[in-house]
Amino acid sequence: MINEHYLSMLSNKSVIRNLSEYATARGKEIGYENVFDFSLGNPSVPAPQSFTDTALDFLKNMEPLRLHGYSPTLGIPEVKDKVAASLNRRFDMNYTGNHIFPTSGAAGALAHALRAVTKPGDEVLVFAPYFPEYNPYINDTGARIKVVPADLETFQINFEEAEKYLTENVAAVLINTPNNPSGVLYSEETLTRLADLLTRKSKEFGHNVFLISDEPYREIIFDGKKAPYVAKFYPHTLTCYSFSKSLSVPGERIGYVAVNPACEHADDIVPMCGQISRGIGHNCPSSLIMLAMAETCDDTSDLSVYETNMNLLYDTFTELGFTVVRPGGTFYIMPKALEEDAVAFCQKALKYDLVFVPADGFGAPGFFRVAYCIDTEKVERALPRIRQFVKENYPNAGH
Amino acid sequence: MINEHYLSMLSNKSVIRNLSEYATARGKEIGYENVFDFSLGNPSVPAPQSFTDTALDFLKNMEPLRLHGYSPTLGIPEVKDKVAASLNRRFDMNYTGNHIFPTSGAAGALAHALRAVTKPGDEVLVFAPYFPEYNPYINDTGARIKVVPADLETFQINFEEAEKYLTENVAAVLINTPNNPSGVLYSEETLTRLADLLTRKSKEFGHNVFLISDEPYREIIFDGKKAPYVAKFYPHTLTCYSFSKSLSVPGERIGYVAVNPACEHADDIVPMCGQISRGIGHNCPSSLIMLAMAETCDDTSDLSVYETNMNLLYDTFTELGFTVVRPGGTFYIMPKALEEDAVAFCQKALKYDLVFVPADGFGAPGFFRVAYCIDTEKVERALPRIRQFVKENYPNAGH
Repeated sequence: MINEHYLSMLSNKSVIRNLSEYATARGKEIGYENVFDFSLGNPSVPAPQSFTDTALDFLKNMEPLRLHGYSPTLGIPEVKDKVAASLNRRFDMNYTGNHIFPTSGAAGALAHALRAVTKPGDEVLVFAPYFPEYNPYINDTGARIKVVPADLETFQINFEEAEKYLTENVAAVLINTPNNPSGVLYSEETLTRLADLLTRKSKEFGHNVFLISDEPYREIIFDGKKAPYVAKFYPHTLTCYSFSKSLSVPGERIGYVAVNPACEHADDIVPMCGQISRGIGHNCPSSLIMLAMAETCDDTSDLSVYETNMNLLYDTFTELGFTVVRPGGTFYIMPKALEEDAVAFCQKALKYDLVFVPADGFGAPGFFRVAYCIDTEKVERALPRIRQFVKENYPNAGH
Repeated sequence: MINEHYLSMLSNKSVIRNLSEYATARGKEIGYENVFDFSLGNPSVPAPQSFTDTALDFLKNMEPLRLHGYSPTLGIPEVKDKVAASLNRRFDMNYTGNHIFPTSGAAGALAHALRAVTKPGDEVLVFAPYFPEYNPYINDTGARIKVVPADLETFQINFEEAEKYLTENVAAVLINTPNNPSGVLYSEETLTRLADLLTRKSKEFGHNVFLISDEPYREIIFDGKKAPYVAKFYPHTLTCYSFSKSLSVPGERIGYVAVNPACEHADDIVPMCGQISRGIGHNCPSSLIMLAMAETCDDTSDLSVYETNMNLLYDTFTELGFTVVRPGGTFYIMPKALEEDAVAFCQKALKYDLVFVPADGFGAPGFFRVAYCIDTEKVERALPRIRQFVKENYPNAGH
């Protein structure tokens, strides 16, 4: 019998998908270069040459039986060791290879991490604004997502609300910093307060609340800053990472779960991920991609374009009178719309071939997300269009 | 809170895993070439050169942003079209690319297919002997596995028992032909009877019972025969395939679900798989691997070694008086042990450095599985050892 739950999901098309389809259709009419599509979070810079060269080298020189053979259930040991060494060197941690579980991107990492530290019926807290895919990621495990309302001034964590939501039913808290959709980087102060809250509540409940840190944008940080490494702040942390953005290889589906050695059950969680894989059909990422990643996990693509684009957009939005928090990283910015209804605002923008995403689905109604992982030249051409759109539709905005 | 279900699974080590660890340890003592390890189903021939060449070509010549970019949720259209065309050409089917969902191997294919056509609480029938990983594959979806006892004479389907097990609670039937662990190929007669049974019961129940056909060994067929294509026999068939064996690339995790265009909800099932992916963290196989597979999906490694090995072992087991069904394909053979307790039998064989797997866990107690995906030279060296083991331990066997 067909599964009615998944069947019914087919009729709920996502806002982003609809907008992106609109942009593609409009592109066919007027040329895609004339559609200012800020809807999709796709890297716009190529993979580093080192990644390509390493993959070529493996294909040319490693025995095919070894290169393409089954990986051990918990991942290739040398790969795990190299990832651990890289994290230890960069973030002053003490992972061993046994704490690393290679996965198919961050989606695969979250699928494992969530199942390892929750059971059906448990609650998982996320903080608005948040990535809407967390809804199926969490709910399809049998646990239940609970969204803590945003601090709309700063997009750091709203601790007053967090305190209320963090009940005994909460098994894990899932954060994403730097954040999609706001671009905001959680400060050391925020992470310290979060750790204090989790520690206090864990003690009160008599069980540890786990922290799952989703960090695919960790390497895209602006203004010369360094992102605080989340697991340094709280022992019971599972770090979920993807190389999609840092190496610009989102199609290759490569990432990992890193289990803090100070975590409760630290030595069990990776083997548990191996068990979880059996039910969800995972069984490791591609062996070739895993090996190429291990050799290049300290490298990144040239990510500077994102900061250049951010500055152009931030300055323009500010100049035009938008309320907007300056992003600390990612390739997103999330200004407040110039009318209450962000959906109506984005609809009006479409008439100027500006494709923005209303942030209602991200838990930030009244705001809109602008993804600027596109060529700077296109961002520059979009700026006068944004000005025109605002002046013609919101003549009273503070510009 | 840690998930106790997955935690408790850590203490149940699989028989195969234990034997394989024994073989590795013993190999360190006496040299791995002297351990006759027939426990693991790992391909022993290299990938075809065409696969390597195609992957090299993509890495050298395709723009990295395109090569490594996000795939559409339902897979790369050109890849899907090529797989459909190959299946249509080879098996006289009428798939379009829209009926193909690329996955991370057969495990990924089954994870999607099972969720698409069952809901938690439903029953899924499998026929003994069967691959024990079907237990977590099925039970972790929330559906429940029901094992139909084997026909121990032929290892075709035991229809008398099937009739009893096929109740109204059964949403899907999962078959695997040619079969792991028996090596048996379901005959056209078996598949016709199965289709008749499913059609009759579907009518009686007022809902279609889906057939999930797990076919990773489809290309390893002996005696010059051709494997009947399961979906030709029954419309409501989801074919789950892996290139692990045909292209010898098990580490690359590449396969697909193919939905018979005559199936109920044929046009919905692939989009439903896209929804299922969100919860289980799948999001397509590696783009590079998907593209290389599409160009080489009609090729295979040189698979002839498996038939050579099968003949050597079949002749020897027969000559020694074993009851054994001649495999029609795969790289497995499953003789009856020479005493009732196959576990005791395999323990005794270990003393001769012969590593066989008791088939109790495969639903065939009293039998043992021999995986002969090893060099022919090693099989030849094992034969006198098998003779010695049998003569010294079972002097009254019919040899």
